Amino acid sequence: MSDVRVHNFTISLDGFATGAGQAPDAPFGHAGERLHEWMFATRFWHQMRGGRGGSVGADNAFAAMHGPGIGAEIMGAGKFGPPGWQDDPGYKGAWGANPPFHTPVFVLTHRPRPSVEMEGGTTFHFLDASPAEALSQARAAAGGRDVRLGGGPSVIRDFLTEGLVDHMHVVQVPILLGRGVRLWDGLESLEEAYQIEAVSTPSGVTHLTFTAKNR
Amino acid sequence: MSDVRVHNFTISLDGFATGAGQAPDAPFGHAGERLHEWMFATRFWHQMRGGRGGSVGADNAFAAMHGPGIGAEIMGAGKFGPPGWQDDPGYKGAWGANPPFHTPVFVLTHRPRPSVEMEGGTTFHFLDASPAEALSQARAAAGGRDVRLGGGPSVIRDFLTEGLVDHMHVVQVPILLGRGVRLWDGLESLEEAYQIEAVSTPSGVTHLTFTAKNR
Repeated sequence: MSDVRVHNFTISLDGFATGAGQAPDAPFGHAGERLHEWMFATRFWHQMRGGRGGSVGADNAFAAMHGPGIGAEIMGAGKFGPPGWQDDPGYKGAWGANPPFHTPVFVLTHRPRPSVEMEGGTTFHFLDASPAEALSQARAAAGGRDVRLGGGPSVIRDFLTEGLVDHMHVVQVPILLGRGVRLWDGLESLEEAYQIEAVSTPSGVTHLTFTAKNR
Repeated sequence: MSDVRVHNFTISLDGFATGAGQAPDAPFGHAGERLHEWMFATRFWHQMRGGRGGSVGADNAFAAMHGPGIGAEIMGAGKFGPPGWQDDPGYKGAWGANPPFHTPVFVLTHRPRPSVEMEGGTTFHFLDASPAEALSQARAAAGGRDVRLGGGPSVIRDFLTEGLVDHMHVVQVPILLGRGVRLWDGLESLEEAYQIEAVSTPSGVTHLTFTAKNR
């Protein structure tokens, strides 16, 4: 069976994946872009934006694992758009006409709407479903390839709690956000189900990989 | 002026320095000894217990910085003993007749008592004082050497909040405790005052060092 994978999911030293005060011009709230500067410096990111250059060290090697082998993504409503996007029937996500997914994307929301086909192979589907139900649909759409779990933190927590994550890459950035949404809440003893590896890189971040022991 | 240093202060991946349910036979609550297994494996620890052997890699190099140059320690009441030790007038700490400090130790408590001289150079003094006041007394007793801040987490947080920590070594262990006492609460933007370095070691832990920018 295909794997469920989390990639490039970034948290502060105090465990926040999102700051407080999310808004259209501040998708990560008061965190701004500080959580993702490590990724913006990589060749993976430069190329995804159509540019050249960027680092090719360990940060890039991890970042570039985001795409290969993925056939669908599942994301929470909070990643798809800022609070209130459900009230705008024409809203099509935070990424413009050609989103960087290029696969079916399943958006978990209590207010589903018709699917939207974008440029570049991304189609947004909207589901009011449990993690297991959403995964079942995403797997069917992924055509045998893996399903990426795109976040945010509460969605990843829900899937972890149900034992549905096979591989998780978390990046810890040495800043303290103090407030926002934590990744780790309610996950006591998670390490029992995973082999965990840690590596710090010259940019100052620490990459943590979780590999499910039952896979 | 001498430095205030924190060494070998260990937290879980979700930021807990102590588990829930501290008791005489469980000083770290439900965490048990899991937070400190990395240290028990080092030569530093083996030698401190009068034994031989132990690892001599990066974990040991960090651990061994605990002693040199230190002239006094400040610790919280929760490190000195389990909840309720203040009700036992004969209680002399959790370390037996020859505690591993070998310097004056200032115990912060709202119920001070007379000082107690132990074997091996350790004397426990009991203070009901602010961080700055306690530091002033500890510095005077340290004879020009550095003051180690021994924890627990709320004491370290109090000193960090007042900008009184010059050097801090935090060890992050890849376990999720889920409950207990967090180190990082209320320390938003702490990184602005410190140069932070991270290194993961083969034992699986990540050492984070904080060096005050103003020193």
